Amino acid sequence: MADHSQPAHGALRQARWEQGTEIPLGVASLAFLAAYALRVLGDGLPEAVLDLCLAVMLAAWALFAVDYAVRRRLSGQRLRFVRTHVLDTVVLLLPLLRPLRVVQLYETVQRRHGRPRLALHARVIVYAGLSALLLGFTGALAVYQQEHQAPGSTIRTFGDAVWWACATLATVGYGDVVPVTPLGRLIAVGVMAVGLALLGAVTGTFASWLLQTFAREDDERPPGI
Amino acid sequence: MADHSQPAHGALRQARWEQGTEIPLGVASLAFLAAYALRVLGDGLPEAVLDLCLAVMLAAWALFAVDYAVRRRLSGQRLRFVRTHVLDTVVLLLPLLRPLRVVQLYETVQRRHGRPRLALHARVIVYAGLSALLLGFTGALAVYQQEHQAPGSTIRTFGDAVWWACATLATVGYGDVVPVTPLGRLIAVGVMAVGLALLGAVTGTFASWLLQTFAREDDERPPGI
Amino acid sequence: MADHSQPAHGALRQARWEQGTEIPLGVASLAFLAAYALRVLGDGLPEAVLDLCLAVMLAAWALFAVDYAVRRRLSGQRLRFVRTHVLDTVVLLLPLLRPLRVVQLYETVQRRHGRPRLALHARVIVYAGLSALLLGFTGALAVYQQEHQAPGSTIRTFGDAVWWACATLATVGYGDVVPVTPLGRLIAVGVMAVGLALLGAVTGTFASWLLQTFAREDDERPPGI
Amino acid sequence: MADHSQPAHGALRQARWEQGTEIPLGVASLAFLAAYALRVLGDGLPEAVLDLCLAVMLAAWALFAVDYAVRRRLSGQRLRFVRTHVLDTVVLLLPLLRPLRVVQLYETVQRRHGRPRLALHARVIVYAGLSALLLGFTGALAVYQQEHQAPGSTIRTFGDAVWWACATLATVGYGDVVPVTPLGRLIAVGVMAVGLALLGAVTGTFASWLLQTFAREDDERPPGI
Repeated sequence: MADHSQPAHGALRQARWEQGTEIPLGVASLAFLAAYALRVLGDGLPEAVLDLCLAVMLAAWALFAVDYAVRRRLSGQRLRFVRTHVLDTVVLLLPLLRPLRVVQLYETVQRRHGRPRLALHARVIVYAGLSALLLGFTGALAVYQQEHQAPGSTIRTFGDAVWWACATLATVGYGDVVPVTPLGRLIAVGVMAVGLALLGAVTGTFASWLLQTFAREDDERPPGI
Repeated sequence: MADHSQPAHGALRQARWEQGTEIPLGVASLAFLAAYALRVLGDGLPEAVLDLCLAVMLAAWALFAVDYAVRRRLSGQRLRFVRTHVLDTVVLLLPLLRPLRVVQLYETVQRRHGRPRLALHARVIVYAGLSALLLGFTGALAVYQQEHQAPGSTIRTFGDAVWWACATLATVGYGDVVPVTPLGRLIAVGVMAVGLALLGAVTGTFASWLLQTFAREDDERPPGI
Repeated sequence: MADHSQPAHGALRQARWEQGTEIPLGVASLAFLAAYALRVLGDGLPEAVLDLCLAVMLAAWALFAVDYAVRRRLSGQRLRFVRTHVLDTVVLLLPLLRPLRVVQLYETVQRRHGRPRLALHARVIVYAGLSALLLGFTGALAVYQQEHQAPGSTIRTFGDAVWWACATLATVGYGDVVPVTPLGRLIAVGVMAVGLALLGAVTGTFASWLLQTFAREDDERPPGI
Repeated sequence: MADHSQPAHGALRQARWEQGTEIPLGVASLAFLAAYALRVLGDGLPEAVLDLCLAVMLAAWALFAVDYAVRRRLSGQRLRFVRTHVLDTVVLLLPLLRPLRVVQLYETVQRRHGRPRLALHARVIVYAGLSALLLGFTGALAVYQQEHQAPGSTIRTFGDAVWWACATLATVGYGDVVPVTPLGRLIAVGVMAVGLALLGAVTGTFASWLLQTFAREDDERPPGI
């Protein structure tokens, strides 16, 4: 626990580690998601490709675990790290959620290229919207894998699963396609909970932006008009 | 690229162009929507009328394309124009969404007649509400066209399609009538996404207005009552 | 148009008229709603009672029309009154919505008895919540009247109609009971639109109140705890 | 009514009472909920265990009634206490809702252990989210008890009831499992009403927190970047 007595030094090394690993880990996340998608959807693919996908998934997972261990080490915390980094811990256990961090990566890349940042509202909307999109895609994949061969299932194709995810994220919930297996329903509840918060943020921010835009328009106009 | 060296001059010409074309383009938008509605709904109409509708749609589309090209020219930007005018580009590709700009036109006409402007909250509600209404009507038309002859479809009449659009925009989603074709579902997802944001803005602004009205009522009343 | 030249006098008479008619009109509204409910639900009632209900409804409607005419007279406006009092005009044409004004009446009565007013947030919640409740009841009545004898209807009892209204107002929309007639669906769309705004106001205000309560709790607590 | 003349003394005793009973009553609430869950779900359990559960429920209820009576006594109010403590009165009549107060208990325990308090937004989200979770569990139990043996019911297992509660709280409302008995529907309406407000608070607070986090990030960054 040498790091504990040198908090400033540890924090510096921690920040350097996070900066250095951001892009490789982001790429690993996308590779994980792509490999998972290929395994779930690639029915007619040769065995070798599916095995390769599995290998990619395991390799990416190993990378995440190493990163988690190193960051816990550098932080000089043990159990407290698990408590203060709940999201990281959840993502380690459910690597499918990892790609959500890619949204952050996108911003890093934009910044390195010297592109101007979006306005506040646009950034929140893009961030929450992209997260919701990734979540919907991931959820559709996972639900499709669970459901498409279950007896009595209404989710038969991946298109059905995407349609279900859209109707769920928008809280419309037609009920024409619906998960029926316990695990499929568990995934669905997760999609609902996270999606509700993310899309609530999108619509709330949009409303606030609209109100602000109209208010500014009033200010800029001469009072006589 | 002479305009590029004279940004002030270009901006002026651009503003004049936009002011001058606002009303003709608004009329063209409505003509496009009306012609589309007639083609979709006019089952018993003579062939000549349907052909006329098609001609109106093509003519309006050509107008939109010309306007887009001129505005890109005047802005002195090339690819950047496409990036900074994403909405205009989308509207060019999906002219059915064009009538949404009519809401803006309504305000222009009101202003020319010297009518007083609505209060801020009312304006946001009217703007987002009218957009949602137009979107619902357009979405109902497009979904009806895709679905009403599909096997296993539950959307048989235009009334069903309007009922579906209302239940979807309100995120109620009964599921008694539901699109079943891939293209119909794609349109539905678009209606959900845009409608969610627009109606979220309406309800959010209404809540904020209600809160403000009640708060003002408190201020105006003498403290003893 | 004598009133027009004496705006202050007209406004005073107008305010006096509104104060004086508030309670009688509120009672008439409730009588109208009760008579309508009795007519719709009272299947086994003798003919005389149903006729009495109809008489009460017509009398109440006549009262509303007289009030509307007097207020338009006093305001010294003609067509503009219709435009600036859209809600009043709608209520005149759809007297079933009139009881929504009773919520305002409740507050008047409370004030006359010298009871303290509720806090701002509570008032908005009570106001919007009561309106939603009345709207749900009225909507359930109207939909039940339209639907319960329609072929293929799923709304067979008044209980079904109330259950449908609750699921609709909460935007849950199970779809197990659903209007199928055109007029029933039109009423449903009205319930959705108004209910969405009212319940959005309730939840938004509740969220804002909760946030404020927790924030105040922080302020009151000594910093060390 | 001696307390009435010594409001300060009464308020002190009242605060002491509430502080002293918070943890025992919280434990009793959880015991009530656990016993109820065991009775509803424990189909194969021996008669003696079910009787014990009933005894625990009655004992907890008695405790709540005593607490209510003592607090009304200490407050020196009679009927006004019922009016100003509507929530307490409702909870006394519907002891199943009592565990919702456990959320408050959790915070008390945290404070006694000297743990730092969560930030404002996190606290509101945790509070409303935990309440919604407890409400969903309680609602699923109650609906399951009402429905699982009703003719024509779609809620056959407790898993179905939990799935229904999740879809209802998220206002998705697929409609694949739905209460059909009058009492089951009444419970469902309660779950909808309370859940709508609680989850509206969660998503609203999350949106506000996200916006604030992004805004702070802007402030901390040097203007050139």
